[in-house]
Amino acid sequence: MIKEVNVNRAKLLISCPEKPGIISVVSNLLLENQANVVHFDQHTTDPQTGMFFMRIEFDLNDFDVSYAKLEEDLHMLAQAYSMDWSLSGNKKRKRMAIFVSKMDHCLMELIWRWKSNELLVEIPMVISNHPDLKEVVESYGIPYYHIPITHETKQQAEQKALELLKGKVDSIALARYMQILSPKFISEFPNQIINIHHSFLPAFVGANPYARAYNRGVKLIGATAHYVTNDLDEGPIIQQDVKRVNHRHTIEELKVAGSHVERQVFAEAVSWHIEDKVIVHGNKTIVFD
Amino acid sequence: MIKEVNVNRAKLLISCPEKPGIISVVSNLLLENQANVVHFDQHTTDPQTGMFFMRIEFDLNDFDVSYAKLEEDLHMLAQAYSMDWSLSGNKKRKRMAIFVSKMDHCLMELIWRWKSNELLVEIPMVISNHPDLKEVVESYGIPYYHIPITHETKQQAEQKALELLKGKVDSIALARYMQILSPKFISEFPNQIINIHHSFLPAFVGANPYARAYNRGVKLIGATAHYVTNDLDEGPIIQQDVKRVNHRHTIEELKVAGSHVERQVFAEAVSWHIEDKVIVHGNKTIVFD
Amino acid sequence: MIKEVNVNRAKLLISCPEKPGIISVVSNLLLENQANVVHFDQHTTDPQTGMFFMRIEFDLNDFDVSYAKLEEDLHMLAQAYSMDWSLSGNKKRKRMAIFVSKMDHCLMELIWRWKSNELLVEIPMVISNHPDLKEVVESYGIPYYHIPITHETKQQAEQKALELLKGKVDSIALARYMQILSPKFISEFPNQIINIHHSFLPAFVGANPYARAYNRGVKLIGATAHYVTNDLDEGPIIQQDVKRVNHRHTIEELKVAGSHVERQVFAEAVSWHIEDKVIVHGNKTIVFD
Amino acid sequence: MIKEVNVNRAKLLISCPEKPGIISVVSNLLLENQANVVHFDQHTTDPQTGMFFMRIEFDLNDFDVSYAKLEEDLHMLAQAYSMDWSLSGNKKRKRMAIFVSKMDHCLMELIWRWKSNELLVEIPMVISNHPDLKEVVESYGIPYYHIPITHETKQQAEQKALELLKGKVDSIALARYMQILSPKFISEFPNQIINIHHSFLPAFVGANPYARAYNRGVKLIGATAHYVTNDLDEGPIIQQDVKRVNHRHTIEELKVAGSHVERQVFAEAVSWHIEDKVIVHGNKTIVFD
Repeated sequence: MIKEVNVNRAKLLISCPEKPGIISVVSNLLLENQANVVHFDQHTTDPQTGMFFMRIEFDLNDFDVSYAKLEEDLHMLAQAYSMDWSLSGNKKRKRMAIFVSKMDHCLMELIWRWKSNELLVEIPMVISNHPDLKEVVESYGIPYYHIPITHETKQQAEQKALELLKGKVDSIALARYMQILSPKFISEFPNQIINIHHSFLPAFVGANPYARAYNRGVKLIGATAHYVTNDLDEGPIIQQDVKRVNHRHTIEELKVAGSHVERQVFAEAVSWHIEDKVIVHGNKTIVFD
Repeated sequence: MIKEVNVNRAKLLISCPEKPGIISVVSNLLLENQANVVHFDQHTTDPQTGMFFMRIEFDLNDFDVSYAKLEEDLHMLAQAYSMDWSLSGNKKRKRMAIFVSKMDHCLMELIWRWKSNELLVEIPMVISNHPDLKEVVESYGIPYYHIPITHETKQQAEQKALELLKGKVDSIALARYMQILSPKFISEFPNQIINIHHSFLPAFVGANPYARAYNRGVKLIGATAHYVTNDLDEGPIIQQDVKRVNHRHTIEELKVAGSHVERQVFAEAVSWHIEDKVIVHGNKTIVFD
Repeated sequence: MIKEVNVNRAKLLISCPEKPGIISVVSNLLLENQANVVHFDQHTTDPQTGMFFMRIEFDLNDFDVSYAKLEEDLHMLAQAYSMDWSLSGNKKRKRMAIFVSKMDHCLMELIWRWKSNELLVEIPMVISNHPDLKEVVESYGIPYYHIPITHETKQQAEQKALELLKGKVDSIALARYMQILSPKFISEFPNQIINIHHSFLPAFVGANPYARAYNRGVKLIGATAHYVTNDLDEGPIIQQDVKRVNHRHTIEELKVAGSHVERQVFAEAVSWHIEDKVIVHGNKTIVFD
Repeated sequence: MIKEVNVNRAKLLISCPEKPGIISVVSNLLLENQANVVHFDQHTTDPQTGMFFMRIEFDLNDFDVSYAKLEEDLHMLAQAYSMDWSLSGNKKRKRMAIFVSKMDHCLMELIWRWKSNELLVEIPMVISNHPDLKEVVESYGIPYYHIPITHETKQQAEQKALELLKGKVDSIALARYMQILSPKFISEFPNQIINIHHSFLPAFVGANPYARAYNRGVKLIGATAHYVTNDLDEGPIIQQDVKRVNHRHTIEELKVAGSHVERQVFAEAVSWHIEDKVIVHGNKTIVFD
């Protein structure tokens, strides 16, 4: 199941304060650079005082030459319009580390989609606070670093991870990683760390959520994938989904149902991130899917 | 769209502590009473120490004679097995009052399904703290009582409502009724009052939930229907569902999307309640749908 | 539940063969006309040889002046680029007739959303081959024309309908209208007639689909809304959805479940059409929702 | 993610013509055999002339003794009531072969759930008409038999497969196996072969379904899991589901979306089959999930 890859394709994401003429000036710039636009999505929160978001996917004929030139031109434009922007080309895959603890379902879903060329990413390493998944990860040729964490060693452990990641990784996928990252760590990868956690209607915040959901007879089990910020589990939402359950499900079976929603939601969020389909603004995402 | 109604049909709901032989003794009793079982659903939380729940739907050949006899027999049996039970026959429709404030979508969905014979219920009255929906409700031949409520008159208002309901109503559907019922009122209709409210993943508890959900870019808008208990919005869940939304939806459009999920979830919960498909145990429902 | 209406807002839909620079030239034109773009969605089937589709929603400050000027400019541009285009402004609501037979669920869903200002449309008339729904339709102040149809009078009946519609109606919603329209009739409203019908996985083509779906134990009941073409039920799909069912549902209950999916899918399709979110190309739609 | 397994648990499935007293007589029999019922689901198509279906899950205290005795008693009862019945106990896992061609997504989903103890099955072998997946299957310790098939050797190939399966396998999962099985082969495993295939609303029967679905702009991509009968892809449906897509999806991406629905629907169907939750009657299933 191999997705056709167009090696001439680039993706441009832009956020800036709304101002008349942005679309014009950007599309003119792309035209001058002979970019053939394939997708062009734009969103404005308010035409007078709002924010402007744009995603453009385009082909570049002479990729290497055009890409560098385009970066330069965008750099100039960005200053005039106070733009946040990012440009990425399919020639260089994003590099994403996976952090995991003991549960393997989210990890394996990513590895699976990566292996079958659905997820066009490089996975330079898996980092875990447990040794359990070393063998299976290495069997796919991915380096596995076991960095144990205790209350006392937490800071050093994070430091060690940062050294491993340095210059080798653009993003991090927390595949049911059961440790809380420090603000310092998070600040090294702003809007580049994706987390997954169970979700219910209503939320069952705190310990034993599945047991409490069971005791209230919930009819839907869900999962939310979001970017990690300093507010635990409160970062910008990327993707969510639910699965129907009923009173016949034991707590154990609710957890299994939850794990299936989690891996699907997580893999979709990671894939949108990798394909540059997500713009973060404040505590919110704009997903051009 | 008229559902076939079998006027010989009765429904029996039973909850009791688990004990060997309950199924046997109940099915033998039904056999002796010449009941033809159509649906027989049973659930046990734990075969040794758990609770036992059962729903049986059956035809009675000579309905009026059999029904009275059956009630008597069940009464005897219930004592021996510490059973909570209820028996209801299609000949006597459940009577349900609807409470409403100003928003009409949940009210109209119930009236619509009742009008088209999908919801086999009697609606003896609609009670509201506002006069706005009087005309439309009365156009369907349903009496509408406007009982204004202020902070000072709340107790009297509830008293007045109770007098209107007394002996005329079995259940109450809160169709976006924006007043909190007192424990005294709720105790008059235990497990017979159904409420609907918006739900999100995660929950946005407190004021302006839609605005806050918008600001976090939620991807799903949901609704939860539940029985009313003294813990506000924390009663046993009957039904839940969600609808996909995206960043293009304004707060106003999220509310519209929410209203469509609410009326569907609410109508399904009410219909399961009316058809005796729900058993409440503690803060949980067993729904035999 | 009133959606905020921006009376200065216009919507532009464009389809044309792909050619470099279209986005530039259109966005420049909008900029010159002082249009503030709110949504800008574009889709290209293939950047070299494909088709180009675009939907732009924008505010116009001095609406009446700008609108006329814009129309003129677009007319000129369209010739240079072989564009199909349509421009519509919120000041003038689309006018949509509803055709219905005896079943009222899709009709009532549209009237309901129209009444609550969710569906910003004018409904100049309802036309039916049966008299059954006259009273309820007229109670909303909408004219109801009963045009009986027999095998012999079919042609005259269509002619009569055409005369009633002439100059008064832009689009037609077939709300479970059980008559097949002639190619001549359809050609008067190209891509402007929306139909709804039940759908199953797999399809049960032919008579008694619900009975056959029941006999094969389908687990999902669906509905498809599409534009009407000369190929019966084979026109471009606008919206689809499904609802989960199980073996406990009788054929009658499957039909009721189907009716709920139908009214939701139909109302969404009509609403997207009314809001100019749909471009038809060949037998396919591009929906910018 | 290990589901709690109760080694004392047995499951009884019964189908027979409706007759008063069946529930009584079966529940009495279970009581005499000291079975503690955990789930008891029953369904009757028509209380007078219909079919009766029942699934009972229960604990047996002294499993080995009780199980044999129960089988004997059921054998007697079955004759009196013309029952089809099956009894299975958790002590003996079902044995299921997997047939596969080149695509691995459905195969891997089953292996994954089996590996993580979600799917309580034995997989004695994988059989394929291609050698491609040999290595990955054998890495899980599962024997892989490559039986090439040409038009000429089809009959011998089936014969060879039957010999491998003989006495070793109860059921077969066709995990995207692209060969049509002969009626003779199917008759060796009646209602024991599960197939998965893509499904659309409406169906796109014949070649290139994804391309045709793309060309009509379908909004949902689905999958259907069913038992294999001599009518190709027309057997009793076990499970179905859909996933929302839009015009931005290429044909290749529709196929990827389809593969995710397929593996989920297939794994659920297989798991219900393994847990004896499915009764087949005619061309229909009753699923007690």
